Amino acid sequence: MRTPQVDRGTGLPERVRIYEVGVRDGLQNEKNLVPVEVKAEFVRRLEQAGIEVIETTSFVSPKWVPQLADAGDLLDRLGESGRSPHRPVLVPNMKGLERALERGVTSIAIFGSATETFAQKNLNSTLESQFDMFAPVVEKAKAEGLWVRCYVSMCFGDPWEGDVAPSQVVEVAKRLMDLGCDELSIGDTIGVATPGQVEEVIDGLVEAGIDLDRIAVHFHDTYGQALSNTLTALRKGVTIVDSSAGGLGGCPYAKSATGNLATEDLLWMLHGLGIETGIDLPAMVETSMWMSEQLGRPSASSVVRALGTAS
Amino acid sequence: MRTPQVDRGTGLPERVRIYEVGVRDGLQNEKNLVPVEVKAEFVRRLEQAGIEVIETTSFVSPKWVPQLADAGDLLDRLGESGRSPHRPVLVPNMKGLERALERGVTSIAIFGSATETFAQKNLNSTLESQFDMFAPVVEKAKAEGLWVRCYVSMCFGDPWEGDVAPSQVVEVAKRLMDLGCDELSIGDTIGVATPGQVEEVIDGLVEAGIDLDRIAVHFHDTYGQALSNTLTALRKGVTIVDSSAGGLGGCPYAKSATGNLATEDLLWMLHGLGIETGIDLPAMVETSMWMSEQLGRPSASSVVRALGTAS
Repeated sequence: MRTPQVDRGTGLPERVRIYEVGVRDGLQNEKNLVPVEVKAEFVRRLEQAGIEVIETTSFVSPKWVPQLADAGDLLDRLGESGRSPHRPVLVPNMKGLERALERGVTSIAIFGSATETFAQKNLNSTLESQFDMFAPVVEKAKAEGLWVRCYVSMCFGDPWEGDVAPSQVVEVAKRLMDLGCDELSIGDTIGVATPGQVEEVIDGLVEAGIDLDRIAVHFHDTYGQALSNTLTALRKGVTIVDSSAGGLGGCPYAKSATGNLATEDLLWMLHGLGIETGIDLPAMVETSMWMSEQLGRPSASSVVRALGTAS
Repeated sequence: MRTPQVDRGTGLPERVRIYEVGVRDGLQNEKNLVPVEVKAEFVRRLEQAGIEVIETTSFVSPKWVPQLADAGDLLDRLGESGRSPHRPVLVPNMKGLERALERGVTSIAIFGSATETFAQKNLNSTLESQFDMFAPVVEKAKAEGLWVRCYVSMCFGDPWEGDVAPSQVVEVAKRLMDLGCDELSIGDTIGVATPGQVEEVIDGLVEAGIDLDRIAVHFHDTYGQALSNTLTALRKGVTIVDSSAGGLGGCPYAKSATGNLATEDLLWMLHGLGIETGIDLPAMVETSMWMSEQLGRPSASSVVRALGTAS
C-alpha cells in the first residue's frame, strides 16, 4: 500500500496525539442503529491500528439519541479497555456522569457551546447558565479522580447566528476550563472556519492562560477546510487533533452535514511531514473499509477511497 | 448564501490569481463527450463569475483525446474572448501550436514531466528528450508574441516510480523555464503531496532563480491534501493557484483518479482569509451546480455541495 513521501515541514511539532471521535461523534449520527458488537469490534480494530485515545460513547438520554442507548453495554463488552483513562465518554449532565461512574469510567468529556442559540437548542440551557450546569459535573468528576475534557462547539460559525466573535469563544472556553477541566477541544461544528480564525482563537486561548498542550482542535470538513485548518493549528503549536476514522459523523443540525476530518487524511499529512502518531495508516484504512461495509456505503475519507480501491 | 467569516491570516499574500483549469483539465477526463456549446457556455459563466484566467482547451490529437476534438470550434464560439491572452490553450507539440496559431490563440501552455516513466507514457518521449521536443515550440510561440506557461507534472510522486526527488523537479522546471516560458505550474498529478514537499520544491525553485511571481501550484485532491498544500504554497509567497470549478477532472492514469482542487473550496479559504480574487463565490457555486446538471452527477466540491443543498 502506498505511503506518503516524507519531507519534514518547518515549524511543526514532532508528535501529534490523535483523539479518535468516529465511534461516538461518528456513529451517533447514523440513521440506522449500529449493533453494539460492531461498535465494540470497531474500537478493538482502532486499538490494533495504534490509536491511543478513543472516545467510545455518550451517556446521553436514550430518548434524545437512541443510537447511544447501548452505552453501558458497549463499555461492558470492551472490558478493561472501556475503563481506561484513554477511553473517555461524553456526559451531558450529572445524570450522565452518574451512569458513567456506575460503569467504572475513568475519563469523561462535557460538551459546551460558544453561542447562545446552540446552547439553547443543543443544551436546553443558555450561554450563561451552561457554566452552572457543568460546574457540579466537573466538580464531582474531579473528586472521583476522573480526567475531564471540555468541548466548545460552534467556535467558528453558527448556523443561526452566522459569525462568532473569537473573543466570545475564548471567554466561554476559559470559563469552562476554569471549572477544572484537563483538556479543551475547540470545535468547528459546521465546518466553515478558515485559517485566520483558527490563528486568532488559538492566540486568544493562549493569552487567556490556557496551556497549548491542553488545547485540541476539532474540525469538520463540510466546506473542505478541515485539513488546512488543522495544519494552521499545528503551526501554532497545537499537538492534539480530533478526527474520525473514515470521516464518519456530521452535525445533525446543519442541513448539508458532512463528517469530521478523516483520521486517514490527517495521517497522510502527518506522516508525510514526518510527525509521529504511533498509528499504522494501512491498518486504519482497512478498519475504515471494514466499517464502510458494515454501514453499507463508501468511506468519506479521500485516503480510504484512494488506497482502498487501488490494489 | 452563506459566506466565510473574514479573519486575516498571518504571512499571506493580499491577492491570489486563480488559473481555472476545469474547462480543459476537467472536461478532458469526462467519459461522455460534452457538447461544444456546453463548454462555451461554461466559459462564459466562469467569465461572468469573475474568473480572469481560463484554460479553454487543448490542441492535442483527437486520436488521443477525442473529448478535445472540438478545440477549434470552441474557440470560434468564444469569439474575441477565446483569443485573449487570458485564455491559454494547451499544445502538446509543434503540430498543436500550429493549429492554435491558425485560430488566433495568444497564449499557450506546454506540459512537461518531472519523471522518466511519465515522460515516456504521457509524452511518448524521455525525461531528457522532452527539452528538445519543447524547445522549438516555445521558440516559435515566443517569436509569434505568445505568452507561454509550462506545466511540470508528477512533481510530488509518480504512480510507477513512487517518490520523486525535489532536486529532480527543480532541474526539470528550471530547464523548461530556461526555454523562455513565462510561467511555471508545479503539478501534484496524483494528489499525494504533503506540505514539507511543497516547501522544499518551492524553496528549490526560488534558489534556482525562478521568480516567485512566476510560480503556480496545481494540486489534485485524491488524498484530500490539495487545500493544505495550497495554503503552504501561499505562505511561501506563491500567488498563482490552479483550480477547477466544481473540482472537475482527475488523472486518467491513476486508478482512483479524483479531481483538481475545487475552485469554490479554494475561494472559501481565500475569502475567509481576506485575500482578494476578484471572483464572486455564489456565482461560482451556481455555475458549478449548472455544470453538474449538464454532467448528470453531483459536484466534487465540498462548498458546492454545502451551499448548493442549503436554501
